[in-house]
Amino acid sequence: MIPKRFKYSQNSLQILDQRFIPFKIKYFEAKTVEDCAKAIREMMVRGAPLIGDVAALGYLLGIDNILKMKLKKTQKILSILQRNADILKESRPTAVSLFKAIDRIHSKAEKLIEKGYKIGDLREEVQKEAFKIIEEDINSTLAISMNGIKLLKNNSVVITYCNTGSLATAGIGTALGIITQGYKYKKISHVYACETRPYLQGSRLTSWELMKNNIPYTLICDNMAGWIMKIKKIDAIIIGADRIASNGDTANKIGSYSLSVLAKKHNIPFYVAAPTDTFDTTLKNGSQIKIEERSIDEIIKIKNVYIAHPKTKAFHPAFDVVPNNLITAIITEKGIIKKPNTEKIKHHLSNT
Amino acid sequence: MIPKRFKYSQNSLQILDQRFIPFKIKYFEAKTVEDCAKAIREMMVRGAPLIGDVAALGYLLGIDNILKMKLKKTQKILSILQRNADILKESRPTAVSLFKAIDRIHSKAEKLIEKGYKIGDLREEVQKEAFKIIEEDINSTLAISMNGIKLLKNNSVVITYCNTGSLATAGIGTALGIITQGYKYKKISHVYACETRPYLQGSRLTSWELMKNNIPYTLICDNMAGWIMKIKKIDAIIIGADRIASNGDTANKIGSYSLSVLAKKHNIPFYVAAPTDTFDTTLKNGSQIKIEERSIDEIIKIKNVYIAHPKTKAFHPAFDVVPNNLITAIITEKGIIKKPNTEKIKHHLSNT
Repeated sequence: MIPKRFKYSQNSLQILDQRFIPFKIKYFEAKTVEDCAKAIREMMVRGAPLIGDVAALGYLLGIDNILKMKLKKTQKILSILQRNADILKESRPTAVSLFKAIDRIHSKAEKLIEKGYKIGDLREEVQKEAFKIIEEDINSTLAISMNGIKLLKNNSVVITYCNTGSLATAGIGTALGIITQGYKYKKISHVYACETRPYLQGSRLTSWELMKNNIPYTLICDNMAGWIMKIKKIDAIIIGADRIASNGDTANKIGSYSLSVLAKKHNIPFYVAAPTDTFDTTLKNGSQIKIEERSIDEIIKIKNVYIAHPKTKAFHPAFDVVPNNLITAIITEKGIIKKPNTEKIKHHLSNT
Repeated sequence: MIPKRFKYSQNSLQILDQRFIPFKIKYFEAKTVEDCAKAIREMMVRGAPLIGDVAALGYLLGIDNILKMKLKKTQKILSILQRNADILKESRPTAVSLFKAIDRIHSKAEKLIEKGYKIGDLREEVQKEAFKIIEEDINSTLAISMNGIKLLKNNSVVITYCNTGSLATAGIGTALGIITQGYKYKKISHVYACETRPYLQGSRLTSWELMKNNIPYTLICDNMAGWIMKIKKIDAIIIGADRIASNGDTANKIGSYSLSVLAKKHNIPFYVAAPTDTFDTTLKNGSQIKIEERSIDEIIKIKNVYIAHPKTKAFHPAFDVVPNNLITAIITEKGIIKKPNTEKIKHHLSNT
């Protein structure tokens, strides 16, 4: 079993520190909003949906702290809540579910305060909202997995990227959720997991999840994916998403773009699996997505040991953008958008 | 300055152990043919031309040992030399320069023995041949660099892969030789070096060579190369080669194939730089090239520390094959073969 990704009780949020997986199961205790933002920024917790879940609980933790401080003044409370929302939203820039979760929970809190809710009651309502966000994540990823397997023929061999499973969501996962469910329904027979440099989510997390779930898999280096597409029978590539623009352009872990070009060259379907929450309809296309640049230490060090000369110059964009014309279909909890474009996505999102 | 890759004196071959670069300058002393094969197999020394050079010196070391043993019987000597040649040729399977160097020096030795050469005189002649192989490497890589820069416009920004510089040859290098020379002649303004998983020749060796030579560079993870081609102005991709079939299909470090597909997609010229020694005209095309599979420990461990669960299943092909139709030109010491095919290559190789 995959360990719980977080455990919340009033005044304490335990976050599974994924930096130690698969070597150690260790929780980081967040006691403040700042702690929670730190856990997100330093990638103790990662995966777009899970970041949203944990951020919502971080916001709740902020209210726990207001309660402890016995603050009464509405203005003061509102200003702290605004600050908390900002701190959480600034923790990472690319995954949109973080912003959506915080905007949703914060505007709910503001409205309740306007209505005259006392802080104790406010806390109850905000907790309900946070739990709802998490529940929606669990339900939508399960729905994604059931929708996704419809696209696969029996005994498919697939390539996946980064980690999009139980460690990236509160539920079964997005791309890896489809794979897990697909294996159960004999739609998947084998998985090639790309190690996903520099953070190695593929080798550390995805391989481990696949191993734990007894799903036949092979770990490969990212630079092997094209060759594998050429020499093996690969039926599909399935990845997750951090943010999808109105036209379907998809920001995901750096390396996704190359995979999509390679898939096209080899006539392999390229699927993106993500909850509708991942769409950012304020953006016309992928060129407007902010790509996070992370520390180059993550490239030239592993486990705090230098693997290149300490003075090496490097570049570390953490994401790239797969253009909609390289995506065979986007799979959401609502269904499947084949050959995604602005019109189809608009229609898909308006469906209830 | 890049340290000497090897130092030979009778009975001792000091091999720069590249596994410690850039952290330590450490030599491994080979005293026997077996030691030399071990150094090649365990990648203390790597790079197709350099493997050929060191193997030739390893063969010479074998004769040093025969001298020490004071063997006289021709049959016995011949059988030891054959065994030595086999041991060296079995050390790695893909780079053809290893086989060519050994075949050349071994057949020379056999002929001299047939002619009645005594072991002392034989040693002198074999040493001359080994030094000639090394000198040819130095000369041909310099010629490659001068030929290669003709293909570049001024201030080009290029992507390179693996290590093909002074650490891969006895001379200036193949692909990286063109880059070094190109920078000198203002043909190159910036280099993106791919880290080249799993062995990290790009981050450990190429970045270090570029740094030492004061050439502006940026290290990237292999999975970033496609994205860099999309968001930056890249003028050329230049790689080396381990073996080139009659039709131009080129075996090179795993990941080269993906790079060639990505280059095509972005209309970026894709160049292969290699001495003519790298051609294996016994092979019709790339499908006949033997691809070495190496230990998966090289993927799941770095510096002897696990970076994935120790029981992770992985696949480690060390090379892949770039098909001739994705190669803009092959650059050798003899000149340039544009859009390589069997006929052009045959003609190129027959030129003196």
